[in-house]
Order: sequence, then C-alpha cells, then structure tokens
Amino acid sequence: MCVHTATVAIATNGKGTYEITDEVAAAVSKSGVETGTVTVFVRHTSCSLIIMENADPTARRDLEKFFERLVPEDTPYFEHTAEGGDDSTSHIRSVITRSSEVIPIADGRMQLGTWQGIFLFEHRRAPHRRQIAISVMGEAIDTPLKIR
Amino acid sequence: MCVHTATVAIATNGKGTYEITDEVAAAVSKSGVETGTVTVFVRHTSCSLIIMENADPTARRDLEKFFERLVPEDTPYFEHTAEGGDDSTSHIRSVITRSSEVIPIADGRMQLGTWQGIFLFEHRRAPHRRQIAISVMGEAIDTPLKIR
Amino acid sequence: MCVHTATVAIATNGKGTYEITDEVAAAVSKSGVETGTVTVFVRHTSCSLIIMENADPTARRDLEKFFERLVPEDTPYFEHTAEGGDDSTSHIRSVITRSSEVIPIADGRMQLGTWQGIFLFEHRRAPHRRQIAISVMGEAIDTPLKIR
Repeated sequence: MCVHTATVAIATNGKGTYEITDEVAAAVSKSGVETGTVTVFVRHTSCSLIIMENADPTARRDLEKFFERLVPEDTPYFEHTAEGGDDSTSHIRSVITRSSEVIPIADGRMQLGTWQGIFLFEHRRAPHRRQIAISVMGEAIDTPLKIR
Repeated sequence: MCVHTATVAIATNGKGTYEITDEVAAAVSKSGVETGTVTVFVRHTSCSLIIMENADPTARRDLEKFFERLVPEDTPYFEHTAEGGDDSTSHIRSVITRSSEVIPIADGRMQLGTWQGIFLFEHRRAPHRRQIAISVMGEAIDTPLKIR
Repeated sequence: MCVHTATVAIATNGKGTYEITDEVAAAVSKSGVETGTVTVFVRHTSCSLIIMENADPTARRDLEKFFERLVPEDTPYFEHTAEGGDDSTSHIRSVITRSSEVIPIADGRMQLGTWQGIFLFEHRRAPHRRQIAISVMGEAIDTPLKIR
C-alpha cells in the first residue's frame, strides 16, 4: 500500500466548466497505483467539482444555464456581495455541487465510465488560478510487500 | 492494509431510487476489511448516488417529485435533448446529487446511521443496466503485518 | 500505511451551519497520518455536510436563506411530514448537499484552502445530537515500514 499526493493548478477564465480528467489521470499514472482510489479536492469555495458528460458541449451549456437561473446573481436578499454579484452565488453553487470526488482505480486506471469527465466548475467571472489537491492511495505495481 | 475493488451491476426500470446498501455491504464483508473506508462510484452521468432515509417510502417519493420540479423535462432553453426530454435533466440531476460516496468502516461494518440507505438515483425513463464501482480499503482482520 | 477511525458528536440547536473543522483537524492530528486522506461522514439523513467560506458570516446566512426558498417547508405536495414541516425538507436538503467529504492530507495537515471550513448543516428545527464518523488513512510519521 502507498499514498501519493499532488497539487495541480488550473487557470480559469470566467464562469464555466473546465475539464481536468487528464490532469487527474496523469497523477494516477505517475503514482504507480494499480488498485485503489484517487481523491480530487478543490481548495476553494467559489468553484467546485463535477463529474459530467464530456462528449457533447450542449450538455454542459444547459448545465451552466440551469445554474444561472437556480442561483441568480441579482437575488435581492443576498447580503454577501462585497466582491460582486457573483460572490454569494459562487459559494451556493459550490455547496450544491462538490468539493471532493473519489474515483476507484483498477488495473492502473480510474474507473470512469465511457462518457464521464471530471470538471472544475468555475463560478467566478474574473480569471482565477485554482488549486486542486489530489491523493492517490492503493497498491502499487512494484510494491515489495503484498499485504492483501 | 489492503484494497479490494468490485463492480456491481444494477438493473433500473425507469426513474426513481433503487437501494444498493446490501450490495455495498456484501463487498465490504467479502473484503475482510475491519477498519477503513468503502468508496462507491457510479460510472454514468445520467444516474447518481444519494444517501437517503430508507424506512418510509414517502420520503423518497417527495424527493423524486422535488427533482421533477427543480429540473423539469420541458425546460424550454435545454438544447441537449437528442435522447429525449430526460437527457439534459439527467445530467443536471446527477450534478446536484453525487457521483461518489465514501463511508467509513469500523468493526467490519459500514458506519451508516440507523435510517441511512445508499441508493442509485435513476434519472432516465428507459430501463438501464448501471455499473457501480466499489473500492474497499483498510486493515483486514487477518492482516499478517500491523503497520499501525 | 495505517487507518484510524473516530466518531465525533456535535450538538445542534436548530437549523443552521455549525463549523466542525477543528474536530476533524484534531482527529487528523491524533492519527499521526502525514500523507493520506480524511473521510468525514454524517450518520444522518436530516443534516448534511458542506465545505463553505468560513470568514464572513453573511455568506452562510445567504446560503441558509437560499435553502429555505429552494426547499420550502410549506411545499404543498410533500407527504412525508409526520415529524413536521421540516421533515421532507431535511432529507431533500441533505441530498442536494453532502453526506461524505474526503480531504487530502499532506505534511500532516488537511489540504483545506485559506477560506474553507467544514460545516455540519443542520436542517431540523429541534436540538439534536449528531454523529460524525471520521476515517483517517495514510502514512504515519513513525511508520516502521515505508512501502512507498
């Protein structure tokens, strides 16, 4: 058994979904873990994680439109707007999506389904540099001791 | 420390919640892990996971009705409807629930509360065969080396 | 590699957000794990977990107001109201937030961002004693065998 951690920085350029599947897959590959899990964690409260259809961009466009309507920027009762209309909305959109996601690893690969991608969901209008903490845990290929 | 992975197939027959607690408990039991975690991951983007009250079926009925209203099939601005009115709605309902769920294991059992069940939440009208990836990690009963 | 589990009890006094970051950090610290993950799991279906901005209380106030409107207590079609108007609403609010959260550990510390706190989100009006199951897994400082 072993554990590897990494931090990945993602540049965002306004609201929307940014695929990070390759970055997470690279951390899994580099770890040498064959069987285990990878934990993906976003270190912010104004962007979040989702696992989403990654083939047809209209699916993500509908999702983004839905969130604009579900948590609108001009909500009159919002108090937490010091950083703009996208301040409280960012936190609320994060809370109803995810901060952490854990994906099983088997045969050295994340067990994502055919159409699944991991995305950073940016809720801020301004460009940001976002940090994703990754932890890969499990049995490595060349582990000298098999405790299974 | 050891890790065991499994894939469970669940047949769904239209929209609704399908309890999978027993399937996950069986994987935990089979693994022999006494102390650790079990990761449950749904390999699709048009169904999802929830942990929900499993005693009174009216609780799940209210939940299902709520989701029909929160993300309605006839939403006029949805573009991603090639597979029907339940296409975009399925992805959005998945995003606001969960793809992965991690449950601590102690004394060889998942630490679910008295009324908690693990459910597959199917968002599609047509029957589907869904895959759940499971990863059980921790200390086995008969682990020859205690590294704690 | 090692794993440690703990259960933490949190007293709640009505609807709202209760920070539990210190309780989780204490479990991580006590475990001696330097590199790994901590899994936090709420053993109930009428309260949930969120990772939220923990500096300005107005952010949480907006969130709480948003949830009151998104899943209102007086929803006419709710059937599951035997325990009061906050019965079905509690389960639904739990489903659209989180039951489990997994946070990577590096250098002996949870990799939370600067403004992130872990909160128990209580959806019930009456006081409750809530149980949080915690599982810390990874490499300990003084692990005698390094399998990395």
